[in-house]
Amino acid sequence: MSFQAPKGVKEYIPPQAEVYQAIRRRFAEAVGRAGYGYLETAVFEDTQLFARGVGESTDVVSKEMYTFTDRGGRSLTLRPEFTAGVVRAVLEYGLHRGQLPVKVWTEGPVFRAEAPQEGRYRQFYQLDLEAIGSEDPAVDVETIAVAWGWYASLGLTRVRLLLNSLGCRECRPIYRARLQEFLRGLDLDEATRARIEINPLRVLDDKRPEVQRQVENAPLIGDHLCAGCKSYHDRVRELLGDLSIPWEDSPRLVRGLDYYTRTAFEFDHPLLGAQSGIGGGGRYDGLSEAIGGPALPGIGFGLGLDRTMIALAREGVELTVPPRCQVYGVPLGEDAARRMFSLVAGLRAEGIAADMAYGGKGLKGAMKGADRSGARFALILGERDLQAHAVQLKDLTTAEQTEVPLAQVADVLKGKLS
Amino acid sequence: MSFQAPKGVKEYIPPQAEVYQAIRRRFAEAVGRAGYGYLETAVFEDTQLFARGVGESTDVVSKEMYTFTDRGGRSLTLRPEFTAGVVRAVLEYGLHRGQLPVKVWTEGPVFRAEAPQEGRYRQFYQLDLEAIGSEDPAVDVETIAVAWGWYASLGLTRVRLLLNSLGCRECRPIYRARLQEFLRGLDLDEATRARIEINPLRVLDDKRPEVQRQVENAPLIGDHLCAGCKSYHDRVRELLGDLSIPWEDSPRLVRGLDYYTRTAFEFDHPLLGAQSGIGGGGRYDGLSEAIGGPALPGIGFGLGLDRTMIALAREGVELTVPPRCQVYGVPLGEDAARRMFSLVAGLRAEGIAADMAYGGKGLKGAMKGADRSGARFALILGERDLQAHAVQLKDLTTAEQTEVPLAQVADVLKGKLS
Repeated sequence: MSFQAPKGVKEYIPPQAEVYQAIRRRFAEAVGRAGYGYLETAVFEDTQLFARGVGESTDVVSKEMYTFTDRGGRSLTLRPEFTAGVVRAVLEYGLHRGQLPVKVWTEGPVFRAEAPQEGRYRQFYQLDLEAIGSEDPAVDVETIAVAWGWYASLGLTRVRLLLNSLGCRECRPIYRARLQEFLRGLDLDEATRARIEINPLRVLDDKRPEVQRQVENAPLIGDHLCAGCKSYHDRVRELLGDLSIPWEDSPRLVRGLDYYTRTAFEFDHPLLGAQSGIGGGGRYDGLSEAIGGPALPGIGFGLGLDRTMIALAREGVELTVPPRCQVYGVPLGEDAARRMFSLVAGLRAEGIAADMAYGGKGLKGAMKGADRSGARFALILGERDLQAHAVQLKDLTTAEQTEVPLAQVADVLKGKLS
Repeated sequence: MSFQAPKGVKEYIPPQAEVYQAIRRRFAEAVGRAGYGYLETAVFEDTQLFARGVGESTDVVSKEMYTFTDRGGRSLTLRPEFTAGVVRAVLEYGLHRGQLPVKVWTEGPVFRAEAPQEGRYRQFYQLDLEAIGSEDPAVDVETIAVAWGWYASLGLTRVRLLLNSLGCRECRPIYRARLQEFLRGLDLDEATRARIEINPLRVLDDKRPEVQRQVENAPLIGDHLCAGCKSYHDRVRELLGDLSIPWEDSPRLVRGLDYYTRTAFEFDHPLLGAQSGIGGGGRYDGLSEAIGGPALPGIGFGLGLDRTMIALAREGVELTVPPRCQVYGVPLGEDAARRMFSLVAGLRAEGIAADMAYGGKGLKGAMKGADRSGARFALILGERDLQAHAVQLKDLTTAEQTEVPLAQVADVLKGKLS
């Protein structure tokens, strides 16, 4: 028997993994420049954290969690998203007692037991960013701008920003009641009728045409915002304009839970079909309290790495990734192999990406290795070269070959590679 | 109620997380120069993969695994180490049908349900590197050299390399029988006597003084190596010498399972007490077959990030990390805040790490934020500055303040920061 990865787990291997690494690196650079510090947090959490912090009425919690009991009888769950764990960590380590907003980011695998399809995996990867402790429209726009700038830096041109406001503790309950009243009058199945009472905003999100048709004239939160929420949202749009970030007002964009407030946004990619949401986030001013913390407004987002990889492919963007190998050593004979080994180690120490043929391959096999490595130069070292303290430097793009004294190889290569 | 991370989970928060990030980045650079490609693999695997690939007789598999059943009734286990999953992925994606050795690395959280103490966590972090498909002493030394170079690049000076050979299919069984014969004659408890029959090499590793005393004169694998293993190991030592990497022969260093062969090594740090092993690895020429693959020799290592962090602290090494914030904006009033917001976004786009005071803080609060941010410069923008299209640039180390036209801020800062 042989083994396979568990069903639905997304994995990356070279050379695709080089792109995966490159886009993660660019995100780390972008968020670093914007003052976000890294957090490395638990992959599994107390199951109750997600029940409260994501919401028991959501599909994620009710149907898609990887939950297990540890040897101490505790119920643990593999994180299905990052925000709840990040806010938990911010509270646990008291980061909110320092400079506000607490600006943090993290990344890694997240887990949902969904039916796998392209762009939807059971183990998938997210970039996560959170700004916790300030209620200022500029903070909302800062988070959006970081994501927007990252997409742009990757060369993606077709990402759309969808924007809405979900109101606050004042105006949202009034809207919610109106919406429920409207929805109760529709012809809906039992499960959806039940959802009206628990989580009415989610009904607006229902993708089935027979539901979509009926909710077309549903009241919209945008028409029910209080003065505070309205001016807050206007300022968000003003600041987006100041940064020349285009958006589309998306009055039906919702996040179902009560602690989501005001700014909600989604990044959408038209070439991704059913899984067009490539990232999203919003303000969650009630989350900290929902998980037992103090009142602490926050905003953040999660961006899907897997869908971003697909978007890059669909747009035909080829990212420049650092060369895996610049120079490849071809030693002929055992003495040459030993000398080449030190030479290659020395080149690496000088910052050159270098590799060599191992296992006593002959000239032909080793040169094939040089080609496969993608290196621009081969270093061929034979008996005679060893005696002459020299090496043959071959440019694999032009087939030009020159002899270089061993002591000068690093300098010569640095000159040619710079 | 408020939530905490599950017991034994190691987490990193700023500013310590900046060091954690820096050492991971340096590893990525070092392995990249040596031609290793990144793999992102499953966090959980088929439980049987670890039973076969780590070994059912090990503590890791018999006592320390996080195992759970998914909704499809499959037994899954959170990875307790990387090698088995990496070899599984190499086989599954057919990487071994390309250039050999397959040179890959990965990193991330690993999980063992052990009793937590300093340097031993239930969720901890490893850097993993594997070279699969070549049986060449130079490959063994290359992996060691990559780790050694990484420790050196971090500034650690007290890491020790412990080295041994575990023999091969030819000589190991002969040694194993001799060792069993010797061990059967000792005064040992029942559990240890049972271990003699399953995994006798592990008895040499037993840390209890009463066992250590008795095995002092046990036969050693080094005295039983066949000619092939002896010359292989001599070449490993020669090549380590060529690269000026010092090692200590460690004839009792073992890895218990039958598919571990020849080169075995450990990186040890004298300032870490009971958890002195900060990394280790070795050759596993029988692993691929043990998990259902073809014969495929391999070597690799896992380095503990958490213990490396402790080693850095114990040696008093302070790593240089990129500044979290170079410039901090102090806007006075709402108009200034709006202008500052665009200014800061522009600075970030120019590659400058910039942040600002949010939430309408006054001069005093915002200047306190500037200090806390660690920025070298503050940009103070008031009503009058706005009218003059200028900003006050304050050097926070000297308190020197100069007026700079808004249009020139980025260039002036770039000059001062370079």
